[in-house]
Formats: sequence, C-alpha cells, structure tokens
Amino acid sequence: MTLKNRQVLLAKRPQGVPDESTFQFVETHVPELKDGEVLVRTLYLSVDPYMRGRMNAAKSYAPPFEVGKPLIGGVVGKVVRSNDPNFSEGDYVTARLDWADYSVVNGKRLQKIDPNLAPVTTALHVAGMPGLTAYFGLIDIGKPKAGETVVVSGAAGAVGSVVGQIAKLKGCRVVGIAGSDEKIAYLKNELGFDEVINYKTTANLREALKKACPDGIDIYFDNVGGEITDAVVFLLNFHSRFVLCGQIAHYNDTEVEMGPRFLPYFLTRSVLLKGFIVSDYADRFDEGYQQLAAWLKEGQLKYKETIVDGLEHAPDAFLGLFRGENIGKMLVKVHGDE
Amino acid sequence: MTLKNRQVLLAKRPQGVPDESTFQFVETHVPELKDGEVLVRTLYLSVDPYMRGRMNAAKSYAPPFEVGKPLIGGVVGKVVRSNDPNFSEGDYVTARLDWADYSVVNGKRLQKIDPNLAPVTTALHVAGMPGLTAYFGLIDIGKPKAGETVVVSGAAGAVGSVVGQIAKLKGCRVVGIAGSDEKIAYLKNELGFDEVINYKTTANLREALKKACPDGIDIYFDNVGGEITDAVVFLLNFHSRFVLCGQIAHYNDTEVEMGPRFLPYFLTRSVLLKGFIVSDYADRFDEGYQQLAAWLKEGQLKYKETIVDGLEHAPDAFLGLFRGENIGKMLVKVHGDE
Repeated sequence: MTLKNRQVLLAKRPQGVPDESTFQFVETHVPELKDGEVLVRTLYLSVDPYMRGRMNAAKSYAPPFEVGKPLIGGVVGKVVRSNDPNFSEGDYVTARLDWADYSVVNGKRLQKIDPNLAPVTTALHVAGMPGLTAYFGLIDIGKPKAGETVVVSGAAGAVGSVVGQIAKLKGCRVVGIAGSDEKIAYLKNELGFDEVINYKTTANLREALKKACPDGIDIYFDNVGGEITDAVVFLLNFHSRFVLCGQIAHYNDTEVEMGPRFLPYFLTRSVLLKGFIVSDYADRFDEGYQQLAAWLKEGQLKYKETIVDGLEHAPDAFLGLFRGENIGKMLVKVHGDE
Repeated sequence: MTLKNRQVLLAKRPQGVPDESTFQFVETHVPELKDGEVLVRTLYLSVDPYMRGRMNAAKSYAPPFEVGKPLIGGVVGKVVRSNDPNFSEGDYVTARLDWADYSVVNGKRLQKIDPNLAPVTTALHVAGMPGLTAYFGLIDIGKPKAGETVVVSGAAGAVGSVVGQIAKLKGCRVVGIAGSDEKIAYLKNELGFDEVINYKTTANLREALKKACPDGIDIYFDNVGGEITDAVVFLLNFHSRFVLCGQIAHYNDTEVEMGPRFLPYFLTRSVLLKGFIVSDYADRFDEGYQQLAAWLKEGQLKYKETIVDGLEHAPDAFLGLFRGENIGKMLVKVHGDE
C-alpha cells in the first residue's frame, strides 16, 4: 500500500512580502522505508517567522530552502511504521520535517514526546524551540535580576509570552508591547504582565513606555525591530541588556532601511546587545527543556495556541504571522490524532 | 609667596561643534594648602574626545562640567609642595585635574608615576586611561583569537593604535582605518598593521574593507561611528564582536542622526555589541596596567605623541581631535620639567 502524500514546496523565492505564489502544492507517494527510517504522519506543523529568512537565497545561519523542494519546519507527528528499533507505531515525535502529510525520516533525527507532560503541541512552543529561545535569550543574555524592568516586543507571540512569564518568575517588572486589544487583555489578565501597550492605538509609544517604565529599562527582549524598537532603545538604562531575538518588521525588507543611530547612546550607557539564534545554545538544550517542563508541570507557564486547520492553509497561516494574527503559537493542524 | 594660576573654564555649553568661545581663561592665585593637600604643577594635559560629552548638560556616565568652573582632564604633573606624607616635592603624579598651571588636590586623588618605566607622558596614553581602554575593550569584549581579523577605526589615535598592537600580539590580522597618508604610513610601517585604509581617499570604503578582510571581520573596535562604521557592520562574521568604544563622529550632533538599520543583520550573525567606558573595569585596572607596562618595557608597544605647546593652546588642541589632527596621543605641554 502506498500512501498519497501532499507536500508544500517553495515555488519561488519571494521578493519582499511572500504571497500564495511563493508556495506550490504537489501530490506524491510515500516511498518504501529503508533501514533505520521511520514514517511519520504530521499532526501539527509549526509556522515561524525565522522561516522567511530561509526563503532567501542568501546564506544565513540556516541554509536556504531549495526552490522546488518541500518547506521544512517544526512538526509534531505520530509514528505510522518504523524501521528503527527505538520507535514504535503510535509514538509521538517531533523534528524539523517537511510541510506534508507524511515524512520519511531517519530515526536519529526524531525526538520522542511524552504526551503525559502536556498536550503534544507544546513541543512546538512552550516546551520546544520558541520556549528555549525565550529561556536562553532572557536568562543567558538578559540576566534578569529581581526588581529590574523588562520590556518585550511581540509580547503575545510564541516567544514573547514565555519571555514575559519567565521574567515575572524572576521577580521583574514586565512591560509587554503587542498589536491588538485582545492580545493586550491576554497579557495583562492571563499572563500577569505589569504593563501592556498596544502599539497600534498608542499615539506616542516612547511616552507610553516612559510612563510604564518609571525606572527606565534594564532588559529589552526584541522580537520585532523597526519603530517599536526605536521607541525603546533611548530609554535603556546604564548597563542594560538588549536581547536581539527577532526582527519580524524587517524580514520582508528588500533593502536596508534607515533608522535612528543609537550607538552614541549605547556607548554612554554601556549597553550590551547580543543577537542570537536558539541553536547557539544547542549544548544546553537539556537544561532549558528540563526547566521549561518543570514550570509547565507546576502551572507556572501558561500558553495559547492559534490553530489553523488543514495543510492547504499552511501558507496563509505563515503569512498571518506578518499580519500579527496569532496570539501565542501559530500552528497548522494537518491530521487528527486518530 | 602666592603663585599665579591660569585656569581654563567652560565658558558656556556648546551647541554642536565647540569653538574658542566655549572656553574662558582666567588668572587666579593658588590657595594655601590644607592638611592632606598637595600642590601640583601641570606638566602635561591630556585632551580626549570623551570630554565633549561632559560639556553637555545631560547626565551621562560622568557628571557634566560646570559652566564657569575649570575643565578637568588627565594631567601629568610634579609635586611642588605637599601636606600629604605620601608625596614629596619632585614626585611625578597623575590624576584628573584642572586645566590650569597648578592644582591643589587631596593626596588621595593622586597616583605616583615611575619615571624609570617610560617617559612620564605615557601615563596619559599607553600606560594610562587610553591604554586601559584599548586593553579591556579588546581583551574582555573582543576576546581575540589567533588568526581572527580585527578592524579598528580611529586606528592612529591614542586608543586605536594600542588596540591594533595588542591584536597583533594576540596573533590577529589587523586592519586599520585612519584619515591621512601620514597616519596610514605610521600604522603600516611602524606599528605593523597588516592592512590600512585611508577613508578620506577611498572611494568605496566597504569594497576596500572586503578586499582587506577576505575572511570577513571577527572583531570591530569602533572609535568613530558614522559612515565608517556603516561600511564595517555588514561585513561582520557569525559570532563576531563589536567593541563600542567611541563615536567621535557624533559627539557634536545636536539631534539623533539616521543611519542604516543593521539589527536584522546582527540577528542572523549572532553578533555581540557592547558599549563600555574604561571605568567599567575599575576593579581590574591593576591587571591592565601591569600588562601594558610589561609590554611597554619589552618594546612591544610603540606610541607617538602629538604635543601642542602652551596652556593657551589647550582649546585648540581639543578642537583638533575632531579635525583628526593627532597621530597617537594629543597632549598639551603646560610647563617644562625644570
């Protein structure tokens, strides 16, 4: 029996903002399993802003996606057949896999998920890559101390919402910036942020931040860049830390934009700025995972998911990230867990 | 006998570029020494770019100079009279003192200089604040490894020329950027820089840097900012370090200028950027001084001085920093060492 397999390919490299023409759907068949290989049915696909960078031809920290090949992203799936003794039918697994109904993959690339810890989807956010990104960026670069003021942009996103909660656990005053009243209410009422600012309805973001941060800003965790970051940087305190995690405002730029020069200010404030990607911390993933899992189990980390149903809507879910449509983690449900 | 004492006061806070009207000369008399005080004759005054910041009213890492009060800077002097048992007539000392013929100062604020180590003026550069700035910025933030490429802007200045030499001692490929053929020749022929670029006569600085840095840039030690830095930043390697030490191109800015947004690039390259001032390392000054003195004694650190003669020319010497007139350390000779 050969299974039919829909795949989503990169049709062409986007110039600027991607659209539906960036993607191409094809139907193939699942090949025979070789020794050591595992057949995984996709339950959930993760769409993440960093994937925009891999659509460009330019060399970056991850190699570019290939035109005409499936897009690759975080997947939670279920083992259908296994030629690897470490995996059995019915196991829940996660890995970076094709945007497709099924993937055939060497077992070495798969990680098992414990479905008793939390819903398996958390392996794609709180207990996965976005959670680790929040954890290492805040803990290792931000080095939060109790009483310090932490500002997070993209605060309602998969990374930002974890950053804010960890900062609260560390005793910080947490100020979140997000782009809808629904997000703002979620951050304030469910996640316990101290102050929240809707940048879309705030006339003077810098003044609003000044008011929300009477003692200045000690840590800025940036997921966004652009004018939101412009409003933050000149409020950074002496010896503050700028955790450069994301720049979603710029991923579709086709040329280098201009912005205010803040280096003279950073000089006089001895500011530390560090760009990072989660794989910089690959040798500490276990530490991060253990801590996140513990917090999750204790109910210290809350989360929200925005779930889009059907592989055919994966492109639109991805494009929605740039329109700020997700609260918490944006996921695509591909197959039910029957 | 009361000694006459010329002092240079801050006449008014400059808007933009300072000029002669920023300064005022007055003649006073040296007061009686109180207990614990020492009378110091100024031999050499240091003029340094950071002093421009202290002319503004804005709070920064150092308090603003006061209008109508003497400017304060690094001084090498000789003890004339002492009411502190730790100092005797004829001792060479250094401290931050008035721009004046004489200063009366509590002995606790003075540091003795060993005139046998090297000429006493070196306490104002290689074996003083600029040397320590170069040392800690490069070693602690830059963390140079043999074989790496280090680019220094303001390379022929008091800090830059030490940075380049320490980087060579650490086995790095060193590329200096400076603004005259005389400086370029000095860096290449006397200090042993691998490559040198005269930014004033180079049509395309970024292309020149690309050629000079075929393996990209691992450490950028920035004394300058502005368009020179614009040309460097997009050549920084993965995991490179940006040592933010000076921004002389901007010290006279009256508003925040615009420049290219480089954060998206820094994100994908996991770049570290750190602003610092030498006093961040106050608890390690002795380590830095010992190392600089050892290198100096071994002849491993060369230096040049640009000496302007006469207290009356101190303002012009200071203003000359912004015109790039100095090779190595800019000093003002106030009194001969009779």
